[in-house]
Amino acid sequence: MALDKVKIALLGCGTVGTQVARLLTKQSEILAFRAGIPLELVGIAVNNLDAPRDQAINRELLTTDAQGLIDSADLVIELIGGIELPRKLVLQALTSGKSVVTGNKALLATHGPELYEAAAQNQVDLYYEAAVAGAVPVVYGLRESLAGDTVTEISGIMNGTTNFILNEMTTKGMEFAQALKLAQDLGYAEADPTADVDGFDAAAKIAILASIAFHARVLLSDVDVSGIREISAHDIAQADAAGYVIKLIARARRYTLNEDGIDGVEVSVAPTMVPKKNPLASVDGAFNSVLVEAKAADRLMFYGRGAGGAPTASAVLSDVVAAAAKRAFGGHAPGELVFGETKILSAAETRSSYYLRLKVVDELGVLAKITEVFAKNHVSISAVQQVNARDITAVTTVETEATTSVLNVITHVAQAKDLNNTVTELKRLPEVLEVAKVLKVEGE
Amino acid sequence: MALDKVKIALLGCGTVGTQVARLLTKQSEILAFRAGIPLELVGIAVNNLDAPRDQAINRELLTTDAQGLIDSADLVIELIGGIELPRKLVLQALTSGKSVVTGNKALLATHGPELYEAAAQNQVDLYYEAAVAGAVPVVYGLRESLAGDTVTEISGIMNGTTNFILNEMTTKGMEFAQALKLAQDLGYAEADPTADVDGFDAAAKIAILASIAFHARVLLSDVDVSGIREISAHDIAQADAAGYVIKLIARARRYTLNEDGIDGVEVSVAPTMVPKKNPLASVDGAFNSVLVEAKAADRLMFYGRGAGGAPTASAVLSDVVAAAAKRAFGGHAPGELVFGETKILSAAETRSSYYLRLKVVDELGVLAKITEVFAKNHVSISAVQQVNARDITAVTTVETEATTSVLNVITHVAQAKDLNNTVTELKRLPEVLEVAKVLKVEGE
Repeated sequence: MALDKVKIALLGCGTVGTQVARLLTKQSEILAFRAGIPLELVGIAVNNLDAPRDQAINRELLTTDAQGLIDSADLVIELIGGIELPRKLVLQALTSGKSVVTGNKALLATHGPELYEAAAQNQVDLYYEAAVAGAVPVVYGLRESLAGDTVTEISGIMNGTTNFILNEMTTKGMEFAQALKLAQDLGYAEADPTADVDGFDAAAKIAILASIAFHARVLLSDVDVSGIREISAHDIAQADAAGYVIKLIARARRYTLNEDGIDGVEVSVAPTMVPKKNPLASVDGAFNSVLVEAKAADRLMFYGRGAGGAPTASAVLSDVVAAAAKRAFGGHAPGELVFGETKILSAAETRSSYYLRLKVVDELGVLAKITEVFAKNHVSISAVQQVNARDITAVTTVETEATTSVLNVITHVAQAKDLNNTVTELKRLPEVLEVAKVLKVEGE
Repeated sequence: MALDKVKIALLGCGTVGTQVARLLTKQSEILAFRAGIPLELVGIAVNNLDAPRDQAINRELLTTDAQGLIDSADLVIELIGGIELPRKLVLQALTSGKSVVTGNKALLATHGPELYEAAAQNQVDLYYEAAVAGAVPVVYGLRESLAGDTVTEISGIMNGTTNFILNEMTTKGMEFAQALKLAQDLGYAEADPTADVDGFDAAAKIAILASIAFHARVLLSDVDVSGIREISAHDIAQADAAGYVIKLIARARRYTLNEDGIDGVEVSVAPTMVPKKNPLASVDGAFNSVLVEAKAADRLMFYGRGAGGAPTASAVLSDVVAAAAKRAFGGHAPGELVFGETKILSAAETRSSYYLRLKVVDELGVLAKITEVFAKNHVSISAVQQVNARDITAVTTVETEATTSVLNVITHVAQAKDLNNTVTELKRLPEVLEVAKVLKVEGE
């Protein structure tokens, strides 16, 4: 308590780390004012002393001895990336009584509970605003602004790369491969784009948010993940004609003894048809947007840059200010992560509205047979549209002599299990040539 | 520090107060967990013991002795409304060492500096998330999430009543009086709608936000306010044709030694043409939305319900949790309000892009004369459109033999002083029959 300054160790000096080091130096006066105590950057741990090229980095601060640096500091900022090395270093910091600020979502989504527990046992804190959605202050929103409320659902766009790709496909009619190539050429997507396009980056983020909102132990491996590789320009055109855009939506939702008698939490990432009037529909490119539904507050939305050096550094520094103030003056962090026993639902137990595109034989009585399959499986249909197979972007029903036609079906909210059974049974019908696409559909 | 619970006095039991009392009782377990200490509602001060009708209110807690109640409590929630009585009671609480949570924007925008100072002198805190934009956590956003960043501008829709009225005018072609009547019939607008439609409610909110963001002493009387009474269905149709919607925008912006050599803060409320692609354009009805621009974080947006009993109560309770935790465990609030010397700019010193609608004599050379007036006054024109006076909603330029025509002019960003001079000079031109409308125009 008799600290006269807070000594900060920075681990990692990549894009975000460099910005953090710059701002800690450049903004030191205002940061000290806000934290109530001066902050001193005492060292920057790097792999290679020659790697940081930015002129603003004081080279005397660089060291390759991360463990020694941690020992000399009061507060540790981890911006290394990867999982095993940061896990070891963050645990070292926490168990030696130092609070940690991290921007490492993969680490939290894989070893979160172990780290939260180490923090609690040593009466220090783990801050991670920057790990979820960059500069978008949704972690603060959940932990503090909604401290007096009950969160029922979180949904949003949490990956800028896939949002950019889907946006290019939507506005320019590109196919997935072409849009991915463009994203890679522009530096928005990695050479290996798996973490982004297959949904794992968004999944790590929603796992963290679900943990906070529902006091549940949610790991990356608990998330039901689908990416956007299977989305075609044709899917997007079809969605557009029906008044939707396709977005990669991450979702965490509390089911409380609903009509299925299920009590638990859904955590999923899936390409989803979003009505154009939904506020998530107009979120472009590099921006992230998170909708939170809470019992009293109703709907809140947080929107901002989900990635990038400066925006992410802004989130890191807000955590540093809070951590330094708490280190110096004590206090209690509302909504600290103490876990209850919450059931994570299997994908089959969750509920959604769905879109199905069916290729069917175009003859009398087909529609009746198909709708009967839905009804038998307790899936209620909201809208059906029959389209000539040779003009499948048409919006209106077209009577045709073609032997095949396409049915676009949108269902009311149904249980995934029932929808799966419906699909299985539809595939067995001789009149159904193909179940060409199944997508979730978002409400307004 | 040896508290075993935090005793709470609630002053006022209207729509929000009733919800706060309900939630304090119903959610007591989760609130205690989040605050780290049990919260006990020890009394509710009201004017009339028979007024609170809600069954959930424990009638034994009601009292008409607000001063005595404050003396018996550790923490005070002020939800009375009005200015003088709450000012007296809040000062009593602060000077006797009790932190205060208030939802009273008029109080803060009128006596804020006096109250912040009383809090600082007595080492207690004043919390007011609920006073600005209801459930939208923008006060937390500014004070905590952006604690490591520099805010340059805040703009947004901060009044639900005017947003509803403008929305009805836009979607249904209603005139202002008709839309206002509808808002009153639906209970969205008061019998005396002045505070809303003349912009004072939004002005109080932006005064509070500007105080936080810029550490500036900004009062309601410092805000340059225009309301929406002068906006017609025709203005909205004209804006629509040009790709804009009209919104009542509240704005606080830092000018740092710009090209005019002006260093200070603009704080204004004005009906503004917002491009349809701007995220504020799609904010409907009862929702509020606040855009924050900061140096590192770039653009953030906070969106949610700006009013209503339950959403506002959610914001009050998040403040109660924070205040109770600080009362019990100490700590430092980042970004506490310490004021620097910041100049509030006069309206004439501010800068904006503008829209002007001119009725002019339709003869050769008029356009040249008019554009010369703009140029002479250093106002650069971005777009001009000439419309037949008898078909003034047409989008394209119409050649006509009519003796008058309408010019729609959109300027680049200009200083208000130069724009005012331009308007004065235009009015003197014999060819200009009327300067029918001047509106601010927002960027994308």
